[in-house]
Amino acid sequence: MSQPTSSSEAEREEGLALRPRFDASGLVTCVATDVTSGDVLMVAHMNDEALRRTIETGDAWYYSRSRKALWRKGESSGQVQRVVEMRMDCDQDAIWIKVEQTGAACHTGRRSCFYRTVTKGEGGAAKVAFVDAERLFDPNAVYHKGS
Amino acid sequence: MSQPTSSSEAEREEGLALRPRFDASGLVTCVATDVTSGDVLMVAHMNDEALRRTIETGDAWYYSRSRKALWRKGESSGQVQRVVEMRMDCDQDAIWIKVEQTGAACHTGRRSCFYRTVTKGEGGAAKVAFVDAERLFDPNAVYHKGS
Repeated sequence: MSQPTSSSEAEREEGLALRPRFDASGLVTCVATDVTSGDVLMVAHMNDEALRRTIETGDAWYYSRSRKALWRKGESSGQVQRVVEMRMDCDQDAIWIKVEQTGAACHTGRRSCFYRTVTKGEGGAAKVAFVDAERLFDPNAVYHKGS
Repeated sequence: MSQPTSSSEAEREEGLALRPRFDASGLVTCVATDVTSGDVLMVAHMNDEALRRTIETGDAWYYSRSRKALWRKGESSGQVQRVVEMRMDCDQDAIWIKVEQTGAACHTGRRSCFYRTVTKGEGGAAKVAFVDAERLFDPNAVYHKGS
């Protein structure tokens, strides 16, 4: 969101070349929204390989920072994401994909990872409440099948 | 998106306490969407103070990594964001705000920072195209008024 200070940055913002600005860990942020409802389903990360595979295959691939591994969304859970449209942002450090989500995007079994609202409560403190928090699958059954 | 491995992580996912998981730089990712169209307007970052002020005031505050400064969205450009709803994600390292956006969210003058699509081109290479890229303001006039 900073102003361009070089022709390289201007080119990144106004050009037609995909030149992702990966962070120190080699990642860009990816926001996945439901193509039908418009809801944000999840925020995750892509490395160069995940981004390339997503563009090539039309399935969402991510890079898991905790597992340090490339990851095709749904490969364990079956809850795959089919990419309908991909966009990149001005400075090319964030990707937005509109997806057809099979089942639930969240590993907790909810449709979206964003199943809690935050509002201003008593005395200005934050108040958290569940919303759209119904589970579409049981994460213990899905992820721990063999254990 | 990893499985919880401790009661602390389970509490963060299923609890009613706001316990943001700030990264090494003290930041969480924030996705702002247009409350009317559902479009993703921008992806930015919040530190503890930006998050607190956003909750308290209902205006979107961010932390600029490039300027290393707290920043009320629109304070230079007048393109403010009024927060209609805030949600946090499962592991509390990402925030989603639905906003009423005055004018344009992007510093380039576009409504959204995501004004380019990425598709699979010839031979599997990425093909970039502008879409919804009309400028609502002239960034040189807005940001360089005094220079």
